[in-house]
Amino acid sequence: MTRPPADVGTLAADIDTPALVVDLDAYERNLDRLARDFAGRAVRLRPHSKTHKCPVVALHQVARGAVGVCCQKVSEAEAMVYGGVRNVLVSNEIVGPGKIARLVGLAKQAEVAVCVDDPDNVRQLDDAATAFGVRLPVLVEINIGMNRCGVEPGEPAVALAKLVAGCRGLRFAGLQAYHGRAQHIQDLAKRREVMETAIDHVRDTVERLRRSGLACETVSGAGTGTYRFEAASGLYTEIQAGSYVFMDVDYKRVEGFPAEFENALFVLATVMSRPAPERAVVDAGLKALAVDSGMPVVRGRSDVEFQRASDEHGLLRLGDPAAKLRVGDKLWLIPGHCDPTINLYDWYVAVRGDRVEAVWPITARGAVL
Amino acid sequence: MTRPPADVGTLAADIDTPALVVDLDAYERNLDRLARDFAGRAVRLRPHSKTHKCPVVALHQVARGAVGVCCQKVSEAEAMVYGGVRNVLVSNEIVGPGKIARLVGLAKQAEVAVCVDDPDNVRQLDDAATAFGVRLPVLVEINIGMNRCGVEPGEPAVALAKLVAGCRGLRFAGLQAYHGRAQHIQDLAKRREVMETAIDHVRDTVERLRRSGLACETVSGAGTGTYRFEAASGLYTEIQAGSYVFMDVDYKRVEGFPAEFENALFVLATVMSRPAPERAVVDAGLKALAVDSGMPVVRGRSDVEFQRASDEHGLLRLGDPAAKLRVGDKLWLIPGHCDPTINLYDWYVAVRGDRVEAVWPITARGAVL
Repeated sequence: MTRPPADVGTLAADIDTPALVVDLDAYERNLDRLARDFAGRAVRLRPHSKTHKCPVVALHQVARGAVGVCCQKVSEAEAMVYGGVRNVLVSNEIVGPGKIARLVGLAKQAEVAVCVDDPDNVRQLDDAATAFGVRLPVLVEINIGMNRCGVEPGEPAVALAKLVAGCRGLRFAGLQAYHGRAQHIQDLAKRREVMETAIDHVRDTVERLRRSGLACETVSGAGTGTYRFEAASGLYTEIQAGSYVFMDVDYKRVEGFPAEFENALFVLATVMSRPAPERAVVDAGLKALAVDSGMPVVRGRSDVEFQRASDEHGLLRLGDPAAKLRVGDKLWLIPGHCDPTINLYDWYVAVRGDRVEAVWPITARGAVL
Repeated sequence: MTRPPADVGTLAADIDTPALVVDLDAYERNLDRLARDFAGRAVRLRPHSKTHKCPVVALHQVARGAVGVCCQKVSEAEAMVYGGVRNVLVSNEIVGPGKIARLVGLAKQAEVAVCVDDPDNVRQLDDAATAFGVRLPVLVEINIGMNRCGVEPGEPAVALAKLVAGCRGLRFAGLQAYHGRAQHIQDLAKRREVMETAIDHVRDTVERLRRSGLACETVSGAGTGTYRFEAASGLYTEIQAGSYVFMDVDYKRVEGFPAEFENALFVLATVMSRPAPERAVVDAGLKALAVDSGMPVVRGRSDVEFQRASDEHGLLRLGDPAAKLRVGDKLWLIPGHCDPTINLYDWYVAVRGDRVEAVWPITARGAVL
């Protein structure tokens, strides 16, 4: 665990860098905006904690009506439950005896559910749940177009659901149906079209399950880029949006309703070298910023381009070589991709106006097991 | 701090995943190979700890003759000194009063030197060093072609060196001259050519400094891709290679002598889904593997391509759909880029043969301040 880059009360201008900074006003507006979308509706919000990795944020979401959170890893689920979250869906397959034991153990301490796409895995979960004396709720994950995990929709899903329903230690709870790639389709009409096809698969599968006597109490999925389509489908009962709390450069490119959310997350960086008129270097590189979805953008400085990242350096190109930028100046970088950027840090520095109001530990950082 | 994925004595096959695994035999051969290159020579080895982030590894390097290590950050230097390393060069500019105070404070506890490329920064270092009562050794960083930090070679370097030499709290100790981009030029002849030009800049600057009465006691630089050129130059006194201990996919593409080092670092991953004949998914994605220099390669499975990484998933494409790969199978992935991959983990699992022999904490993980 590293030292925090600021204390409560520190002036924002004095935060040590690089630091992961939350603009609390923008963050709370994002939380409220999505919560308003779901107020009084049957479909519930179950935000994805893989984005924020922090029970403090999860509890803010729960306080605004979220039914609980999703996780991708057992160790993430442990961090959430031990941080006070009472209802966790592991929206992922959990493989291997050690992880399965921890998952089932955790289900004795909170409401915990998991996803499956493989018959042997179902049997292993059943054995562990039976040994621990729990009845684990299980969602069958279906592939609705992302081509990652999940059985095919329709009969393959029904067959696996029947297997789950026949297990003494498991309870068939419904479907996991998420289309990750659709989230980032920029064009709204194209995104809607892709999701209409995806939701047709869900509808067909739910109907076939019903005819087989298997009710889907839960249909869970969606992200920040598509959630309004799933929420309007009449099929989904839970929405798993995650990135909406913070946003990033990549998600801000997605047209339509996702643009209503604000950039609330920044990497504060310091100019550490100003060796040539058209060039500057900041102290944030690959170990401070994930660049898998592109370079960060410098907030409020359209004259400064973040051109490339090496391990500990960010190379800036200045449009106007006479631009004011000196060694020691601090810049607010909007990360290209929020989730893996957050996973680099042990602390959020939460700022309101010009002061640090809180420093939150990112307790699930690095929780990959 | 996350839980370690294995205990000492665990069978390699039973390590929880994803895990960062060191093949101790290959690792020790890499350490010995570079140490042999420098045995009995005037030029010394000062490996870069930004690669490994771990005092245990640093002390293995020192035990084989390294004069100490380099760091990029004050917090890295603190982790090294508090982990038992007595001599640290911060091969980077350190900006801001908090960091400068910590740097100078650390110089009272071990041999610590730093790099500069800016006159105001020199004055701030001087003030802090004077206040702490230390005389801080300072290298002037020169730009030998990387176009990142550093003053231009020749007269600009001499001017800054004179400023340093005139400071009561500082001691002009020589030059930092590193060409990061040259490290990854695949073609050996092209790489040599680039480094010949770069080394000419160093030679010219050393000569001009000498004529100004400023001796370069230290000329430090080089990486795994170029170190033999710098070592043979008669100018460099220290070699900063870092990646040689572990190697990665990107460095293994570099032709010539770097190829003598072996892949000693792996991300062990588990197949968590096998939803289609040509497709499998492992439990290691962007939070378990840095992909900035390309995708990982699956060791010993040329029939399996790591095609893309999402946050927690690695998508594998199988050349032969009938290939044997089942849910629960473990794969050894060679990371695309070792440094930022290591920075994702809290633990090395050090394996000899089929057993875990040690679990080392990566105490400088996330040390960006």
